[in-house]
Amino acid sequence: MRAGLSWGVRPMADSNAVEGLIQGLRRLPGVGVKSASRMAFHLLQHDRNGARALAAALTHACDAVRHCERCHTFTEAEVCSTCLDPRRDPSRLCVVETPADQSAVERTGAYKGLYFVLMGKLNPLDGIGPRDIGLGKLFERAGDGMVEEVILATNFTAEGEATAHVISEGLRARGLRITRLARGVPVGSELEYVDLGTIAHALVDRR
Amino acid sequence: MRAGLSWGVRPMADSNAVEGLIQGLRRLPGVGVKSASRMAFHLLQHDRNGARALAAALTHACDAVRHCERCHTFTEAEVCSTCLDPRRDPSRLCVVETPADQSAVERTGAYKGLYFVLMGKLNPLDGIGPRDIGLGKLFERAGDGMVEEVILATNFTAEGEATAHVISEGLRARGLRITRLARGVPVGSELEYVDLGTIAHALVDRR
Repeated sequence: MRAGLSWGVRPMADSNAVEGLIQGLRRLPGVGVKSASRMAFHLLQHDRNGARALAAALTHACDAVRHCERCHTFTEAEVCSTCLDPRRDPSRLCVVETPADQSAVERTGAYKGLYFVLMGKLNPLDGIGPRDIGLGKLFERAGDGMVEEVILATNFTAEGEATAHVISEGLRARGLRITRLARGVPVGSELEYVDLGTIAHALVDRR
Repeated sequence: MRAGLSWGVRPMADSNAVEGLIQGLRRLPGVGVKSASRMAFHLLQHDRNGARALAAALTHACDAVRHCERCHTFTEAEVCSTCLDPRRDPSRLCVVETPADQSAVERTGAYKGLYFVLMGKLNPLDGIGPRDIGLGKLFERAGDGMVEEVILATNFTAEGEATAHVISEGLRARGLRITRLARGVPVGSELEYVDLGTIAHALVDRR
């Protein structure tokens, strides 16, 4: 992005602090120079307390947040509370891409097993390989002797499908049951508006 | 927003730091809980250096940035470099809503006078009155004996027009020339696609 496109061009250049804040905000995903300028203006003009609170939250999170030793999700402890929960079924392991996906599965209330959070997906174009998403750690975790079924709940995108495929290939030899979330017509939808690939999968997987 | 909608619902609740970061990011304008979760994930998983840099930029900006004594824009000095520039014409004063608007006028290269930045606009519904946008300071600034013309470059929105109206009413008695940016058809546009109000104004203001 050219410097000339940014808010703090020449007439504003005597505030390097504003310029630095705009550059800092542009590190956020999905935030371009216009949004960053608007955010910087809002924080400095209307919500300096919010800005200081955000700075403190960023620093605290960077210091405190680590990955769970067992499931790899964000936690502040060595092992997260989900992995430590004795009421959960240790024979089932649900593999998801992100903590947000884990949260979505959890909110259904339909799953009481444990999780493994990849914190990403295979993406050769971006140079994200099996090591970057901790597949070795997943294979080790799945081989703990307790796990009987691994449920692949990666996204139904090209990268998510490829990730699920690589995981299932890696785990097949270990005698585990490998399942995948069912593909089909979303609840509440009308066939007319569902894409054809989804209908085709729902036909093949009919029950 | 209900806590249950946020990313850090029960299974993630052992990371209060992540939850706090999401809440902190939601102070940014235009950022809801989904965007904030995505940003928090990105920063913690892929760009902790960026997160620390943003925290430092926020703190530095809150500490260093103040308002120019003369034009009210963001600066780190008592008076900003634009107001101090001796090559600028002190007889003309352009009134804009925000530093971004000032930057837009400046980038045209068509204006060499000085500015007054309101840092907002009149908005009775949000409780923003004349005092909140420093109109008293503007009237004082415009009455310095040097200013001959005040160019109202507030936005052509309902609030911007109202702000321009209030300013022109306040300055009329002081014998200053008050002008407004011309309304008309944008350069490069086809009449067919221009809204009727704009065409009506362009007809009235034809030259």
